[in-house]
Amino acid sequence: MKLEIFTCLITLLFFSTSASTNTTFHHPLDPLTPSEFKLVRTIVQKKYQASPPTLTFQYIGLDEPDKAIVLSWQYSDPKTKATTLPPRRAFVVARFKKQSLEITVDLSKRSIVSTNVYIGHGFPMLTFDEQDFVAELPFKYKPFIESVNKRGLNISEVVCSTASVGWYGEIKSKRTLKLQCFHTQGSTNLFAMPLEGITVVADLDERKLVAYFDRKIVPVPKAEGTEYVASKQKPPFGPTFIGAAFVQPNGPGFKINGHSISWANWEFHLGYDIRAGPVISLASIYDIQQQRYRRVLYRGYISEFFVPYMDPTSSWYFKTFLDSGEFGFGQSMVSLEPFADCPSNAAFLDAYFAGEDGVPVKIANAFCVFEKYAGDIMWRHTESEIHDEEIREVRPDVSLVVRTVSTVGNYDYIVDWEFKPSGSIKMGVGLTGILGIKATAYTHVDQIKEDAFGTLLTDNTIGVHHDHYLTYHLDLDIDGEANSFVKTNLETVRVTDHSSPRKSYWTVVRETAKTEADARIKLGLKPSELAVVNPNKETKPGNKMGYRLFPFTVANPLLAPDDYPQLRGSFTNYNVFVTPYNKSEKWAGGLYADQSRGEDTLAVWSLRNRSIENKDIVLWHTVGIHHVPCQEDYPIMPTLSGGFELKPTNFFESNPVLKAKAPKPVHLPKCNSKP
Amino acid sequence: MKLEIFTCLITLLFFSTSASTNTTFHHPLDPLTPSEFKLVRTIVQKKYQASPPTLTFQYIGLDEPDKAIVLSWQYSDPKTKATTLPPRRAFVVARFKKQSLEITVDLSKRSIVSTNVYIGHGFPMLTFDEQDFVAELPFKYKPFIESVNKRGLNISEVVCSTASVGWYGEIKSKRTLKLQCFHTQGSTNLFAMPLEGITVVADLDERKLVAYFDRKIVPVPKAEGTEYVASKQKPPFGPTFIGAAFVQPNGPGFKINGHSISWANWEFHLGYDIRAGPVISLASIYDIQQQRYRRVLYRGYISEFFVPYMDPTSSWYFKTFLDSGEFGFGQSMVSLEPFADCPSNAAFLDAYFAGEDGVPVKIANAFCVFEKYAGDIMWRHTESEIHDEEIREVRPDVSLVVRTVSTVGNYDYIVDWEFKPSGSIKMGVGLTGILGIKATAYTHVDQIKEDAFGTLLTDNTIGVHHDHYLTYHLDLDIDGEANSFVKTNLETVRVTDHSSPRKSYWTVVRETAKTEADARIKLGLKPSELAVVNPNKETKPGNKMGYRLFPFTVANPLLAPDDYPQLRGSFTNYNVFVTPYNKSEKWAGGLYADQSRGEDTLAVWSLRNRSIENKDIVLWHTVGIHHVPCQEDYPIMPTLSGGFELKPTNFFESNPVLKAKAPKPVHLPKCNSKP
Repeated sequence: MKLEIFTCLITLLFFSTSASTNTTFHHPLDPLTPSEFKLVRTIVQKKYQASPPTLTFQYIGLDEPDKAIVLSWQYSDPKTKATTLPPRRAFVVARFKKQSLEITVDLSKRSIVSTNVYIGHGFPMLTFDEQDFVAELPFKYKPFIESVNKRGLNISEVVCSTASVGWYGEIKSKRTLKLQCFHTQGSTNLFAMPLEGITVVADLDERKLVAYFDRKIVPVPKAEGTEYVASKQKPPFGPTFIGAAFVQPNGPGFKINGHSISWANWEFHLGYDIRAGPVISLASIYDIQQQRYRRVLYRGYISEFFVPYMDPTSSWYFKTFLDSGEFGFGQSMVSLEPFADCPSNAAFLDAYFAGEDGVPVKIANAFCVFEKYAGDIMWRHTESEIHDEEIREVRPDVSLVVRTVSTVGNYDYIVDWEFKPSGSIKMGVGLTGILGIKATAYTHVDQIKEDAFGTLLTDNTIGVHHDHYLTYHLDLDIDGEANSFVKTNLETVRVTDHSSPRKSYWTVVRETAKTEADARIKLGLKPSELAVVNPNKETKPGNKMGYRLFPFTVANPLLAPDDYPQLRGSFTNYNVFVTPYNKSEKWAGGLYADQSRGEDTLAVWSLRNRSIENKDIVLWHTVGIHHVPCQEDYPIMPTLSGGFELKPTNFFESNPVLKAKAPKPVHLPKCNSKP
Repeated sequence: MKLEIFTCLITLLFFSTSASTNTTFHHPLDPLTPSEFKLVRTIVQKKYQASPPTLTFQYIGLDEPDKAIVLSWQYSDPKTKATTLPPRRAFVVARFKKQSLEITVDLSKRSIVSTNVYIGHGFPMLTFDEQDFVAELPFKYKPFIESVNKRGLNISEVVCSTASVGWYGEIKSKRTLKLQCFHTQGSTNLFAMPLEGITVVADLDERKLVAYFDRKIVPVPKAEGTEYVASKQKPPFGPTFIGAAFVQPNGPGFKINGHSISWANWEFHLGYDIRAGPVISLASIYDIQQQRYRRVLYRGYISEFFVPYMDPTSSWYFKTFLDSGEFGFGQSMVSLEPFADCPSNAAFLDAYFAGEDGVPVKIANAFCVFEKYAGDIMWRHTESEIHDEEIREVRPDVSLVVRTVSTVGNYDYIVDWEFKPSGSIKMGVGLTGILGIKATAYTHVDQIKEDAFGTLLTDNTIGVHHDHYLTYHLDLDIDGEANSFVKTNLETVRVTDHSSPRKSYWTVVRETAKTEADARIKLGLKPSELAVVNPNKETKPGNKMGYRLFPFTVANPLLAPDDYPQLRGSFTNYNVFVTPYNKSEKWAGGLYADQSRGEDTLAVWSLRNRSIENKDIVLWHTVGIHHVPCQEDYPIMPTLSGGFELKPTNFFESNPVLKAKAPKPVHLPKCNSKP
């Protein structure tokens, strides 16, 4: 019991440390602080003399200094760093009089640097406030109340949620949302009980309902069996687990200094953006042979997240979400629960974003950072070939995890950045939460004569087929900016000259991508290793130093390429893209993703077919999952995991953890061995 | 400090428990005990009046009772189980007068039941003793001593290791081995310093050298930089890690009763075989809704392990190993190191096999069993759509791991069977140890003008290209034996009738495999979910109950299909096979894998194209890795991980861990919080 408190104290200690330091900035890439958000608000509201709903902040984020400036600062004299911080700027997308404004604010000079009215297609990210506002409108709307009454449902148990509308070839678009309502019946699991057949359309700029459809009455699934909250469950419970305590009496092995984190041989900056969520920058690894930190990743984040559902009917066809660009993957981050979302040895950090009124909103415990002791083996060998001795040498593995969870409506996305001492960075994605559920009259599959577009999970309940595509922006800078993308193709060689008893073997044929077209890749079609290398840096034996993409959850889109959702999600057409670094190419689905028309996507940028050889390049990789729901996913989904890894490949001269010592035995606080 | 001892005590307690129980058998699938091995030895040696080298035991294992008998016993009245054990039999492959004998011994009756002289191609598994014997022969062989002297090397620093010879179209085969020798120069890492160009051929039946080739002098790589033993390393060390203690004061949550293990909602039998290594049988999961254990996996083990190297030259072409069938994946299991190979909360079990003289050999700590607390999330959801409350419900994940490590010469294979409360079984494979290294004159890639068949890792050192294929035998019995194999194909549907604003979506088309040909699958060619279902059992809404194969490390062979090694390894031609259960079809590469000719492989059995619908079927899945070595793999390789998962899919009516409670807080022994 005491030890628990002790562990708690460690956690709290870190929490308070981080909480106090992440409200002021120390690094050019630190996210905007609460006081900076307030300053932006003051400056912009003063200029336009307006506040919500006339003027709304759809996005406020750091307008990063140019990469050259950041790099120059990062590697400058540590003594002068505090005083040579580059000027701070904020980038704002505001909605003002039905127009999207792009405003750059200089925070040092307390002035607006530039203003631009965006005139292209698509709309900015949705704010929570406007979604909350329109989700209340049906409750004052007579036809909706009548629809609820007609179904014999209790309106006090109805909740409405918002869905972006997508784009389906309309010539003119208004900034609208569709509302999907649910009958909770006292259960927490509203998403399991949709009021199918009713679609409410709201105009966000007008903040009013603009269309209403009550197509047909479909039975609402019963609440029984939907609940997932422990206190509302009835026995039998199970399975049961024995508790365990994980103790680091001297605290964790990592250091958090503001947003800069160092651990073992890694150091990196952990940023945050209302749209991207966690942003990893300037990740470098200490090379014990070179006795210096070496650059690996200038920037890594999830650029876009495409979730198309596969039901073409009137109440579902539009559900083809861009979870980052429409809903804000950072805005959707939720507070993590100590001892459950993260293990007992985790430290926590908060995050702040600005609401539509510009007022900072705090997400407490938005990040956790912990050392992962999963029981894995870093490396080992048992040697018994040498006479009279059996040698066994084993190193247990440890890694550092930065975790966030973004809950976008029904789904919870667990995003892990895992740094391994061996030099790998593993990006993990866990999908949990509630399925996208459609109500139906069916209670048995034998009744289904046409396509039901999903799996019948229980009475009146269809888990609709869908995909998840997460597109990562990975600005690798392998020992510097000038990098190339190299495909190491494995090719069969036929031995026909009888020089060997063998008839064949495989060998590698390396191919350096010259332009973007060479680097648009569908994985799985041929055996190939993909790496970003520094063509100007070689190891002692002469291999190009690089990092390899090690994919393990890939899926190729099955929508027709000319279908509207796929045009908007065309950045998923390939599993891999490589582009030359361009500060403006941040969002794979475009800056204005809501109702976008696919004109500003990674796939379109790539068509410029720019040179990417020996250039500052960005690797884009899409993790993809086709999801055919099964009954186990209901009423709440066991985590489905995926991801990929970036692994050093001839980056080091030899195994970088060869000389890692196993952790020393832990000397716990004085304990008696009797409980 | 005290707590360490305390944790140790727990471990030791378990260790001694298991050590005392796994020497007698309680279950029809328990591996042969030391006394049973002795009995087999006595009976067979008495019959043939011979001992090594005239009569050698190449394999002794349990001759399992028929599946029907085991199942009938397993589900019989627990009270009478101890007295109704089916008769115990051993299956023996012996080498006697240059013939392979198959002998079945009845241990209850202490008699030989049947004897058969095998007359087909291929030879039985190699024994450690015969390999050790022939590995010493070069040191008494003058031409070899001269070769060593000619190179100016010290013979006292030379070690020879064994390699199987494969089959390359020879009409007549003798039971031979090739020896590869190394100049250790005081380093532990012999495999990094090969005496390239020398091949020694030994006859195993004659126990003498039969051929010798000293083709050319190649520089032996220097010992510098090869060492991996901590005590022999020089500073700088690093990276460094902070220790952590993991404590379960009331012991672990699993129970080991002989070879039967139960934990949370799982129970299974952990067997052992000198050839297969760990064998998981009778895995069942408790269904909280049905209030009973339900059958999932009758039997799972690694059936064969194919490792072809990609160098066709005279001293390397034959290196196309079948690590199970030739070297014994169980025989190659090594003792696990507490706190390093397995975490501090692990329990350990021993294993026993019979040496070529029939005498039992103990592998202490051959298995470890531990609860894995990796910091993962079992499921979660944050609900903020319901007015005035934010609900957060999170369950941390725990799983049970059974781990073994097989060290086959240079490579160490970590084999994990991970049981998840959500119903998944995850098979993990970790590759570590030492690369297959070839000596070369090269010191820089610029010198390489022809194919070097690998990566230049450091001076004079090539890491040779190779593959790893692990073929799992997975006898799934989903709620009973009669099962079917179902492909759920994801297919694009074009919407052409303007019934939807969408132009397309995907849906599922299910296809039940009728015969073996329908179930030979190369993964990645089309999006499909593969499942073994019980066509006679459906859920309430009418879905067939099943388990899905969730592959994540697949590779397709690149050798020509008619090349000799690929004929022998043809069981890797597809990533998936399904066969009707047949007791004799155990070894995917054939019972006599050494110098096999590919006549008795899974690929050949499958050509019979038997019916597999609503039958007792076996799923075979091959985990594959193409390995292009990189410098980080040298001198010892950071673990490269792969594997796959079997996941319940409509097996349960709903999420089986919905009502799992988070582990209770741990009450540690009385502690003061001051160190």
